Amino acid sequence: MTNRVFTQRDIMQLPQRERANFINSLSGFKSANLVGTQSKEGLNNLCLVSSVFHVGAHPPLVGMLMRPHTVRRDTLQNIKDTGVYTLNHVHVSFADKAHQCSANYPGDTSEFEVVGLTPKMSSVVKAPFVAESIISMALEVEQINVIELNQTELVIGRVVEVVLADNILLNDGYVDIEKAGSVAISCLDSYHKTARLDRYSYAKPEQALSSIWLNDDPKS
Amino acid sequence: MTNRVFTQRDIMQLPQRERANFINSLSGFKSANLVGTQSKEGLNNLCLVSSVFHVGAHPPLVGMLMRPHTVRRDTLQNIKDTGVYTLNHVHVSFADKAHQCSANYPGDTSEFEVVGLTPKMSSVVKAPFVAESIISMALEVEQINVIELNQTELVIGRVVEVVLADNILLNDGYVDIEKAGSVAISCLDSYHKTARLDRYSYAKPEQALSSIWLNDDPKS
Repeated sequence: MTNRVFTQRDIMQLPQRERANFINSLSGFKSANLVGTQSKEGLNNLCLVSSVFHVGAHPPLVGMLMRPHTVRRDTLQNIKDTGVYTLNHVHVSFADKAHQCSANYPGDTSEFEVVGLTPKMSSVVKAPFVAESIISMALEVEQINVIELNQTELVIGRVVEVVLADNILLNDGYVDIEKAGSVAISCLDSYHKTARLDRYSYAKPEQALSSIWLNDDPKS
Repeated sequence: MTNRVFTQRDIMQLPQRERANFINSLSGFKSANLVGTQSKEGLNNLCLVSSVFHVGAHPPLVGMLMRPHTVRRDTLQNIKDTGVYTLNHVHVSFADKAHQCSANYPGDTSEFEVVGLTPKMSSVVKAPFVAESIISMALEVEQINVIELNQTELVIGRVVEVVLADNILLNDGYVDIEKAGSVAISCLDSYHKTARLDRYSYAKPEQALSSIWLNDDPKS
């Protein structure tokens, strides 16, 4: 196998679209979530994000990085206006519909309607879930910080409601997102299903790892 | 299919370890990277992180969330001392060794040695790559911010060197991290390989998506 090496100068000399694909690939696999919001006027909005990440469990915090608010961004505006939003796992059966939500529709268009997904209001916050998602959560904004390096906006929300299928939650709190059919994203536009390698025991020095998967739930 | 609903109160009443598993599962699939650093004294250190995420392509920025610096954290200390680090994709063949790197070894132990991975110094920064990784990059710290909500530390680095196998880079800049054998993580301890569903064209209103995968590279 031959390696290729890119210096900082090589990276900066890539054409813009190639550089975007290249750098977006490097961080590794990403989560695939649809963000559900409502405008002040009550119009539903749905937006695909691959930038959701875990921030902490106590309190339960989830982060999401949004592109600069220099052009109209309905989702970010709605989140700022209402202080709430939902996150909904993209399921293998509607990855194409989720991707289509990234198209730049007019502000008065509900992406739910044009792509064919079903809004279902949260009982806790004023924002719609995606009824087709196997795992959904409602969040209240805790903070929104601009990252000065590139003007992206880091939204951190507190999880205030979780709705999920009851056959994917194990006794130890692990949610089997693979069984739930949640997809992973690479780069900007590639969607992947997963196949578990293993679940490993808590790692300690001088102690061999063991599988904790077979103990909990049959692999097949 | 029956749904289960967790209110904020339900979440807070979960036992600590169950809540940690539960909330860590909710954000979706995560990247799997080993962080390579060197101490001021020149000792190599290797640490598994599932919190690496894309921040921007121009300039090329990658983020990583680190747990609170209240106990000894060699990796974060090394990054603060030297201003540089490497990120190395975890390959399916060494997911177990990567997981073992999360054990709390004494500060004078090199995780490379105890788990059996090979350090290879970057030619640009004073930090070791994992020679076994198919995709590696070297970074210089741009900023480290404490997230006051839970005292985690957000490290943002600028990519200054990329080393990857030359058979995984497509013409449009997309790096085929699935072909590279990069793994995804769910929750704290579950490792997954991936199978591509598709790569979709740039989404536009009133235009059906098409696959851009077959055009670029045969699926099989």
